[in-house]
Amino acid sequence: MEIKNVCILGAGTLGSRVALQAAISGYQIGIFDIHEKALTDSFQVMKGILLQLEKAEKIQEPIEKILSRIHFTTEMDKAVNQADIINESVTEDLNIKLEVWRKIGEIAPKHTIFTTNTSYLLPSHLAEASGRAEKFCAFHFHDVFYARVVDIMPHPGTDPSLIPLLEDFGKSLNQVPVLVKKENPGYIFNSMLIALIGAAGKLLTGEVASIEDIDKSWMVNFHMPMGPFGILDSIGLDTAWHVTKSRKDTASKDFASLLKTYIDQGKLGEKSGAGFYYYPNPEYKRHDFLN
Amino acid sequence: MEIKNVCILGAGTLGSRVALQAAISGYQIGIFDIHEKALTDSFQVMKGILLQLEKAEKIQEPIEKILSRIHFTTEMDKAVNQADIINESVTEDLNIKLEVWRKIGEIAPKHTIFTTNTSYLLPSHLAEASGRAEKFCAFHFHDVFYARVVDIMPHPGTDPSLIPLLEDFGKSLNQVPVLVKKENPGYIFNSMLIALIGAAGKLLTGEVASIEDIDKSWMVNFHMPMGPFGILDSIGLDTAWHVTKSRKDTASKDFASLLKTYIDQGKLGEKSGAGFYYYPNPEYKRHDFLN
Repeated sequence: MEIKNVCILGAGTLGSRVALQAAISGYQIGIFDIHEKALTDSFQVMKGILLQLEKAEKIQEPIEKILSRIHFTTEMDKAVNQADIINESVTEDLNIKLEVWRKIGEIAPKHTIFTTNTSYLLPSHLAEASGRAEKFCAFHFHDVFYARVVDIMPHPGTDPSLIPLLEDFGKSLNQVPVLVKKENPGYIFNSMLIALIGAAGKLLTGEVASIEDIDKSWMVNFHMPMGPFGILDSIGLDTAWHVTKSRKDTASKDFASLLKTYIDQGKLGEKSGAGFYYYPNPEYKRHDFLN
Repeated sequence: MEIKNVCILGAGTLGSRVALQAAISGYQIGIFDIHEKALTDSFQVMKGILLQLEKAEKIQEPIEKILSRIHFTTEMDKAVNQADIINESVTEDLNIKLEVWRKIGEIAPKHTIFTTNTSYLLPSHLAEASGRAEKFCAFHFHDVFYARVVDIMPHPGTDPSLIPLLEDFGKSLNQVPVLVKKENPGYIFNSMLIALIGAAGKLLTGEVASIEDIDKSWMVNFHMPMGPFGILDSIGLDTAWHVTKSRKDTASKDFASLLKTYIDQGKLGEKSGAGFYYYPNPEYKRHDFLN
């Protein structure tokens, strides 16, 4: 089958970026959100990204032409009724997602491929609710433009013929598809990132080294622009706390407690102006940090 | 005190690189090894690195002038008797290191700073044997030229006034010094690297994803030139196995078993021509690997 029409459910940060990349790649997009405001914000975010891409000469068409392929709507059936594939990025809440997938199962065309962009749930949590478990698969983006991995994670009931289709579709979106052969919370990259961050957290709570020396060690040896605590600030300490507090080992518990003290002070990371560092000019970005 | 004369014990890969960088930085070096052959090999390795650095315009002096500051010897007292600081990189074996430090304690000048470059032992394992525990500290390099972190890890009896001296000395060697405030096996960077590699190993032994997809995930999202299995090949699977098999959790045990099957086939990583990938042209370096 050929994919022409793409439906994105949820016009948050990630949904907007996926929709935009799909439009850049030439697809027709219907993007749905229940909130009109989310859609107008999404439009502005897309425009901002397109201006950057235009400046970097990374798009071949005029901005208006790309945006003309994206149809913003608060009516779910308008986004869904022509879709060859749906990628769902609604609020990360099981009940909300179950409700959305029940409705999609009722209104989507028979041939439509169902994918979820969930970060923390598994496709098997949602597949049955859609009424078409065999057409259901996780298709999980990272940030689309810088971190270009897309995880393809089937559940045990996914029709295997979907996998090559999703691999080709992912490539057409300028992503690098990777296959998660069995359901795994955290897919591939996030599993490794959580381990790295956990080790950094243990060094900090164990008073082995300072935030700065931990980040320096990673940045210098791997020539990376940020270390684990800079990464945590960009992810958001609230998000990191949600992941960390669900783990049972002592080191994770200690680190979750430490994260909570930051969160209680309103330090959520880059988005709040402070986290382990202060923004917009965090110490780790200063030219003398690695001297 | 001013450091002018540097003694390097052990002319293996890391000892040679530390000695060379110290010579580039203008110090007088005595480098000791019990094997004449190790010293002649070390000289060749240094020459090779200097030719690369000269080509990249990263050294200001003629190669011969830099090398003239390095004195190679199989007589330990000749390397030690003028030393302001000693950095020991002999075989990673407790008894050998203890024997070396006992001897150094007998022959070194009174003011000499004692440092070990050990990867797996702790300074408190060696300090007493030197007879001058207060002058003893770990001073641990990574690869000196690409990975420029140097870990300063005192044991509880180290004289605190050594720390700023070692920080300045590390900076003078073009390294980024970081302080490991209490003894920690794996210092800072290696603790995090081991966690990352452990998570990658768990994804592989759990049959969640392929070697290539695990590496792709890391390389693409972090824009890095290699992923965990490429890194393992460069570290050496035998070294990784030694670290992994000492860990008690199921995932580490499974991964240690898997590493052993590679080692039993002679696949030790890049140095043996094969590991998770085949060298000198591993798949992950091919231009189409991330397509």
